[in-house]
Amino acid sequence: METVETKLPDSVLDVFRAASTSSIATLLYKRGLRTNFIQGVTRLGGDRPNMVGQAFTLRYIPAREDLNPIEVFQDPDHPQRVAVETVPPGQVLVMDCRGDATAASAGAILAKRMEVRGCAGIVTDGGLRDTGQIGALSMPAYCAAPSAPTNLTKHHAIDLNVPIGCGTAPVFPGDLVVGDVDGVIIVPLHMAEEIAKEIKGMEAFEAFVFEQVTNGASIVGLYPPNEETRARFDALVKDEKKDTA
Amino acid sequence: METVETKLPDSVLDVFRAASTSSIATLLYKRGLRTNFIQGVTRLGGDRPNMVGQAFTLRYIPAREDLNPIEVFQDPDHPQRVAVETVPPGQVLVMDCRGDATAASAGAILAKRMEVRGCAGIVTDGGLRDTGQIGALSMPAYCAAPSAPTNLTKHHAIDLNVPIGCGTAPVFPGDLVVGDVDGVIIVPLHMAEEIAKEIKGMEAFEAFVFEQVTNGASIVGLYPPNEETRARFDALVKDEKKDTA
Amino acid sequence: METVETKLPDSVLDVFRAASTSSIATLLYKRGLRTNFIQGVTRLGGDRPNMVGQAFTLRYIPAREDLNPIEVFQDPDHPQRVAVETVPPGQVLVMDCRGDATAASAGAILAKRMEVRGCAGIVTDGGLRDTGQIGALSMPAYCAAPSAPTNLTKHHAIDLNVPIGCGTAPVFPGDLVVGDVDGVIIVPLHMAEEIAKEIKGMEAFEAFVFEQVTNGASIVGLYPPNEETRARFDALVKDEKKDTA
Amino acid sequence: METVETKLPDSVLDVFRAASTSSIATLLYKRGLRTNFIQGVTRLGGDRPNMVGQAFTLRYIPAREDLNPIEVFQDPDHPQRVAVETVPPGQVLVMDCRGDATAASAGAILAKRMEVRGCAGIVTDGGLRDTGQIGALSMPAYCAAPSAPTNLTKHHAIDLNVPIGCGTAPVFPGDLVVGDVDGVIIVPLHMAEEIAKEIKGMEAFEAFVFEQVTNGASIVGLYPPNEETRARFDALVKDEKKDTA
Amino acid sequence: METVETKLPDSVLDVFRAASTSSIATLLYKRGLRTNFIQGVTRLGGDRPNMVGQAFTLRYIPAREDLNPIEVFQDPDHPQRVAVETVPPGQVLVMDCRGDATAASAGAILAKRMEVRGCAGIVTDGGLRDTGQIGALSMPAYCAAPSAPTNLTKHHAIDLNVPIGCGTAPVFPGDLVVGDVDGVIIVPLHMAEEIAKEIKGMEAFEAFVFEQVTNGASIVGLYPPNEETRARFDALVKDEKKDTA
Amino acid sequence: METVETKLPDSVLDVFRAASTSSIATLLYKRGLRTNFIQGVTRLGGDRPNMVGQAFTLRYIPAREDLNPIEVFQDPDHPQRVAVETVPPGQVLVMDCRGDATAASAGAILAKRMEVRGCAGIVTDGGLRDTGQIGALSMPAYCAAPSAPTNLTKHHAIDLNVPIGCGTAPVFPGDLVVGDVDGVIIVPLHMAEEIAKEIKGMEAFEAFVFEQVTNGASIVGLYPPNEETRARFDALVKDEKKDTA
Repeated sequence: METVETKLPDSVLDVFRAASTSSIATLLYKRGLRTNFIQGVTRLGGDRPNMVGQAFTLRYIPAREDLNPIEVFQDPDHPQRVAVETVPPGQVLVMDCRGDATAASAGAILAKRMEVRGCAGIVTDGGLRDTGQIGALSMPAYCAAPSAPTNLTKHHAIDLNVPIGCGTAPVFPGDLVVGDVDGVIIVPLHMAEEIAKEIKGMEAFEAFVFEQVTNGASIVGLYPPNEETRARFDALVKDEKKDTA
Repeated sequence: METVETKLPDSVLDVFRAASTSSIATLLYKRGLRTNFIQGVTRLGGDRPNMVGQAFTLRYIPAREDLNPIEVFQDPDHPQRVAVETVPPGQVLVMDCRGDATAASAGAILAKRMEVRGCAGIVTDGGLRDTGQIGALSMPAYCAAPSAPTNLTKHHAIDLNVPIGCGTAPVFPGDLVVGDVDGVIIVPLHMAEEIAKEIKGMEAFEAFVFEQVTNGASIVGLYPPNEETRARFDALVKDEKKDTA
Repeated sequence: METVETKLPDSVLDVFRAASTSSIATLLYKRGLRTNFIQGVTRLGGDRPNMVGQAFTLRYIPAREDLNPIEVFQDPDHPQRVAVETVPPGQVLVMDCRGDATAASAGAILAKRMEVRGCAGIVTDGGLRDTGQIGALSMPAYCAAPSAPTNLTKHHAIDLNVPIGCGTAPVFPGDLVVGDVDGVIIVPLHMAEEIAKEIKGMEAFEAFVFEQVTNGASIVGLYPPNEETRARFDALVKDEKKDTA
Repeated sequence: METVETKLPDSVLDVFRAASTSSIATLLYKRGLRTNFIQGVTRLGGDRPNMVGQAFTLRYIPAREDLNPIEVFQDPDHPQRVAVETVPPGQVLVMDCRGDATAASAGAILAKRMEVRGCAGIVTDGGLRDTGQIGALSMPAYCAAPSAPTNLTKHHAIDLNVPIGCGTAPVFPGDLVVGDVDGVIIVPLHMAEEIAKEIKGMEAFEAFVFEQVTNGASIVGLYPPNEETRARFDALVKDEKKDTA
Repeated sequence: METVETKLPDSVLDVFRAASTSSIATLLYKRGLRTNFIQGVTRLGGDRPNMVGQAFTLRYIPAREDLNPIEVFQDPDHPQRVAVETVPPGQVLVMDCRGDATAASAGAILAKRMEVRGCAGIVTDGGLRDTGQIGALSMPAYCAAPSAPTNLTKHHAIDLNVPIGCGTAPVFPGDLVVGDVDGVIIVPLHMAEEIAKEIKGMEAFEAFVFEQVTNGASIVGLYPPNEETRARFDALVKDEKKDTA
Repeated sequence: METVETKLPDSVLDVFRAASTSSIATLLYKRGLRTNFIQGVTRLGGDRPNMVGQAFTLRYIPAREDLNPIEVFQDPDHPQRVAVETVPPGQVLVMDCRGDATAASAGAILAKRMEVRGCAGIVTDGGLRDTGQIGALSMPAYCAAPSAPTNLTKHHAIDLNVPIGCGTAPVFPGDLVVGDVDGVIIVPLHMAEEIAKEIKGMEAFEAFVFEQVTNGASIVGLYPPNEETRARFDALVKDEKKDTA
């Protein structure tokens, strides 16, 4: 298990709490990154704030029947249990189940424990069980499908905090994980601050465009903006800054 | 881009506003059509009236990286943007993404613009981004999955209003598109009026059957009806006509 | 069509009404059963009590066009219609559609008839149509996807109450079917009473653990329990029995 | 197990020994049948004559671990073993594995026994093991993939000679099974004689067309034929009949 | 149907006749292109020279039963038939079947006609029928699977020589198509000459490396080369040029 | 990178050189292991002796574009290159590509280097490029599909000799890997000697059965054997021992 030294400041995390995964995807696209959206995972439960936190990873390999009797959970060093007690407050547990959702990677008790510990969320490209209870938590959780079978049925927990794949996205420990209603996206750690800076203006501009469109404006010259639109938006931003000064 | 000359009258569209895709599927089945239901797309947001309108199509091919830098959106002739400003009020934008939902085919701003322009809905066998905002519109939208990556990541917009495939269904410009909670079905343009005539009675009969079943009737002789049932229903229809006369 | 002689007593069924599919999955796992969760089916409509009942099965093979004109429903002996009128009150209709959800295996009228007849639920690894109406019933229904096309489009009903596969799970007539928000699981008939006995204590213990975790307890030594935890729980159970005596 | 009374005469079978599955597919298509080609199965070993015979079916459901210890093969009534000893000489064993090729449905010893017994072939939409040995037999065999795990791993043999699905095609006991290098197609029993009559001329015409094309003819007016081409072909056939008279 | 004006000179095509798709893939990768390999298609028949030619495209949409009776082939303007008679000698027919290989996109007679006309090959992400005969032609053919059903079963030919997707790769008319034993790759027309120049040296260097490795050299410092290796290779090339001068 | 201490003796490896993966699968099944066959990989090239060796593993995660420029191969510590130079003679390189065959995990030069170094084979659940050249080596290689794109396109090499999943099978460093025409199976290291002992007799018995069946014997009482058959086989073995004594 590696330790992630770099902790992102709250000011950066706060920016992402107000950002959408689609805006992040566009900014990653501009930097050549096309695969960082975690395909095929869905949020349990209803509407809630963005999930934002650095990644703490758990890697599973396929289960081998002789290694996975139910008794393995008696072992206090079982990696899944260690993960739940070890993922630092404010971080997101990201699990690599090789996209196999025919068994759970965690259930309600472990999820509740993580919530109590102040973790920021759960993401798995496998299943989750007890999805009714997990969906009722305030801590967000994303999975590929509800799945009642215990993780031992298909998944053998093997490694903590190593680079993994989750739903075709690469995830390195410490990467920033952001989840909204569209799904979950991974921001490489070294890009997080830079993207935070750029995304603030982008979200403001998109809100401005949405309002213009609501009022009947055509998207031509507006989205993307021509010079005139850009000038109008810049003026508006300046005015707002004055107002809130 | 071809122009569709035939516009279906409101009277026909109104019939489909009260029809279910399952009834339409049965009437198409009787005419030998088995593939016109768009498999694998889901409606965003909660309950709402049927989506009903003629098809305006947008075709994507797989993106090629050198052709799809983010700057292509600056081009006012980019087919996706042209589609959004061109699809006639009352029509449905149907997009062919070759069933690849790992990138969006549109987002909230474009969807809002279409709503403002009076379009009848969006259907894509790819992804949609900003699905929270799109699901909150009154205009219905159907996609294969929420997906944050911009369409440039996977999709290169190439053609407007040509025949396409959408989720294994053939879609010709001008075909009638009907969506309800089960999904979306395509009624070939030349069959629309004929099916409209037949479906009215069919929906009435199914409502009658549902009521009978609710009251404890067996489906034997009722669904499908034997002669006695058919006579009872016909009498009922006659009575109702008198009542509303 | 075989007849299932063994009817499980209400006392057993009642235990499963308060059990979760994930607990059942764990108890089956302890007995070496890894495949009895029906993968890939989702419950229509919102929250409701567990679906609990013995399995009555319907087997479909792929449709052959000359055998499946719409007129086949006129035949009162069509197996799908016979199933709907024959599945005993309290039992669950489980349908084998070979995992093909591109056509429905039933619609609202048949589902309503089953509800009126007192059936306990519907499970299919194919599609269901009229999912709005079916989701509004009190009787639970699970399917792989909403799908408007009539079952004749893809499915030819062939057999009643034979062993089938449903979503990769083996289902024998008379097996116990339990459904909750995670999905549906099959308990082999001969194991039902034994598992009922064991699961009661298991659910009580998990509730105890969940409460402890909510109050801040670590899962180490708690889940799974060490001797001290087990003693505390046993004492608690004894006290509760006194209280309710 | 039903018994198929109708045995096709050798004269009909012989016609199909010289026919291609693609010609058969076209003739079924003309009669409205679109799904009778068994998708996704491949012939083991190299070139050999067509596989032609009536279908004898074996149905598997998913294995349940407690029912499928290795000892079940000790039971002389195990359906897979009964099938191998019971499929009549000249017939084809068609197996329904629900398209799951992650385990075998038979191996070399059973295949050899069938060859010795004079069976016409094996088709499974699951796996076959010992594919090197099976591919070296003179009896043709088709499967979805080579797969070493014993059938008990995934498949529980349950029924003999009932209607089944194989690779999305419906198969009724007694249907005619024809296999060539493209794959396997099912001819409904009652259509076999009629199609035999039509296909003879069709194959002759296609051979004529192939020769014309080889000699440089355009396909326009040739394939499909205009009246002149048809007349030339008819004249040729008449001449050949004279020659061989 | 657009006309492609730019015809690549034979000197360029000849370079690609001696190049591997894997080398081309690497050179496209260096230019940022990751998706131009046509995934999932296999060459019919045994070993043969590279397939090299510019793309002539045919687009299919899903078939609609009322539009696709067998009689449509009587129409001399049916796009599939026009394609076969129109694709210029030396070019490759590339077909977009939306990755659906459950029906053929062509058969032996059409393939033979193309061979006689001097076409360079066939590529389809759907099926081919009569694969025994097609695999015996000298003209190479690639498909996703052998499939006997006529194309009308699933595919409706709609467009000639427009940009298409084939097996997730974008294909523009006139692009260079290269096929070897690994599969088929698309070189964008405007990159073809530049890549031709670079690939010649690359293939020579890889042959040099392969020989060194065969003789026992480690790949460290050899592949990729350090300065010393590069110098040795350059010297060798100079010597060879002298020898052949 | 862990080091595997236990090296299996040649006597054990030799037994597996004469064993089939299907026999091994059955012996693993008897011990409760159902998932150790690597699903979906195919051997390149024609017939050859069994691949037998202990596993040396290489783990890939999904590629991230900024981390995978073509220049990474200049790094002598790139894990893929280190793997090729480090896998001990007699061992098999097993690669975890998460089942994604849309890019290669190695090509001809690296495979040749491994062959020269005396490695026992290559297994990947991703693609291989230059499959013509690799299939011509004497060292066996298995992959999910030929795929020309360089591994950087999709795969980021991250770890050597850790437990991995390959094609849904769990693989621990040092496990025994056996490949034949059916595919590849993993024998857990600690079971290898025990299975070696049992499989010898099993293969002899199956050869005996195959011969009996060839001579016309029914499988009833023969396969599995009744007491009489067992006695006959034992007598035969005794005689053969005498003969070779």
